[in-house]
Amino acid sequence: MLVKVLGAAAGGAFPQWNCACTQCQRSRSGIFAGQPRTQAQVALTEDSVSWTLLNASPDIRVQIEATPRLWPDGGSLHSPIQSVVLTAAEADTVAGLLSLREFQPLDIYATPSVLRILREDNSLFGLLERVPRQAVWKEIDPNVEFSLGELRFKPFSLPGGFPAYIASDRRAQLEPEEAVLGLVIESPSGKMAYLPGAAKVEDSWRGWLEECDVILFDGTFWTDDELCRVRGGGGKKALEMGHLPISGPGGSLAALSGVRCRRKIFFHINNTNPILDESSPAYAEVLAAGWEVARDGMEIRI
Amino acid sequence: MLVKVLGAAAGGAFPQWNCACTQCQRSRSGIFAGQPRTQAQVALTEDSVSWTLLNASPDIRVQIEATPRLWPDGGSLHSPIQSVVLTAAEADTVAGLLSLREFQPLDIYATPSVLRILREDNSLFGLLERVPRQAVWKEIDPNVEFSLGELRFKPFSLPGGFPAYIASDRRAQLEPEEAVLGLVIESPSGKMAYLPGAAKVEDSWRGWLEECDVILFDGTFWTDDELCRVRGGGGKKALEMGHLPISGPGGSLAALSGVRCRRKIFFHINNTNPILDESSPAYAEVLAAGWEVARDGMEIRI
Repeated sequence: MLVKVLGAAAGGAFPQWNCACTQCQRSRSGIFAGQPRTQAQVALTEDSVSWTLLNASPDIRVQIEATPRLWPDGGSLHSPIQSVVLTAAEADTVAGLLSLREFQPLDIYATPSVLRILREDNSLFGLLERVPRQAVWKEIDPNVEFSLGELRFKPFSLPGGFPAYIASDRRAQLEPEEAVLGLVIESPSGKMAYLPGAAKVEDSWRGWLEECDVILFDGTFWTDDELCRVRGGGGKKALEMGHLPISGPGGSLAALSGVRCRRKIFFHINNTNPILDESSPAYAEVLAAGWEVARDGMEIRI
Repeated sequence: MLVKVLGAAAGGAFPQWNCACTQCQRSRSGIFAGQPRTQAQVALTEDSVSWTLLNASPDIRVQIEATPRLWPDGGSLHSPIQSVVLTAAEADTVAGLLSLREFQPLDIYATPSVLRILREDNSLFGLLERVPRQAVWKEIDPNVEFSLGELRFKPFSLPGGFPAYIASDRRAQLEPEEAVLGLVIESPSGKMAYLPGAAKVEDSWRGWLEECDVILFDGTFWTDDELCRVRGGGGKKALEMGHLPISGPGGSLAALSGVRCRRKIFFHINNTNPILDESSPAYAEVLAAGWEVARDGMEIRI
């Protein structure tokens, strides 16, 4: 399995269009010891011919153009991208579908609740249904494995809830366990866990996490109050937003320290997170703990 | 007035993610005599402090990052972008609003029908209403001028109809003359006409077009059957899609040849259009006729 990180930042990217925090300012000035990053996006393949996207970020168009492996290889309209697996209905995970509309056949996998949000509550996604056999919507049951070619997907429900844009009356009609998924993706050559948004590490996860060759884990925030401090009081706590911070006694570094796994990679990194700064103590600490920090263009072979 | 072209291509951009036409292939190979272009996006300002976007393209985030004039200038969350004027409800003109959501105050102007499509038919845009005084939705009457600071907007209805994603029963509830707008934007220093999608040039337009210093005009296609030929039979005719082709006896070059105006600029250029190729006879022909071809980053002072 080849896993390509097309974008490693959390929603808003790094730098974020309207953020003048120290890190964003320094990045724009060209004096930041770290790379800019587009919004979280992964593509994977077993045969290097047909690719599956994990979610569809708002940056997907420029991410594809930055990735020769995902360019059309001939004919008039063509793409190696054959499917998309959605793990939530956040704008960061679905808006890119609107950029994948040019009459291109695409299998789109999501839970029934997420499909209802897209297909019943947002007429724009009708763009994907303009010709026969354009988008084919496929339901994911959070407890049932499914296959895409030689790749086997094991979805599981994560705590988290539906996005803030969903009205409370609509929310009451949806299934909470269908709001946010984690994935374990298995190929003949190995396994990867995909957990870009996790509010905690369940004790029961350790067993199967140890069986994975690679973990892509929620690297959104370094501390629980990071956003509040950077925003001078505004902003939510990391845990309120469904993201376990990396540092501290209850953080993900500590919680996953005992998990043996070939590569542990922080992914979905907010613009305020000091691990973006390769001259920071935070960056040194994650490296010393055996972790990597995802960056755009990173290729992971499993 | 300063007009900044952030993106000059039609929907899908150039190259287009799933297009393997000669121009897209050559552009990706680095052997094309012309620049890549992001999707159509204009920003304008009178005072160089507060900016208005004309529409919100799916590429808006990367377009802002490519434009230092649009970077935040301090504080925690800030943007010089204060308003957006929407001229249609196409994905190409509205999807970028989803990238402008980070709790940033924004006045969004559109016709009542376009506002209904966004606010009633697409729950995702609720992202723009998460805190008080975030998005302020403002109605445009197609026949009534309005002001944004020192800029004066004169909207007018264009033939064209609502986007294909809108179901026929919903379409029946909307006002056809609110589907697609053209704009004349006037500042103390001059006037610009903004017509990125025009299926014809009305005789009655000549008078006011001559009063404009700059025309940004529909440069989508060179010929009516361009898309059908490139797609090998698939695809619609330019006029069916609401775009007057540039070339030929009935094309925009001929129709606007008598209009005296300081700068005439083709804008919203499809990836298949030969005017993107600066070594082409088509490019030479538009230049010889006194036209310019818009490109990303172009600044127009009026």
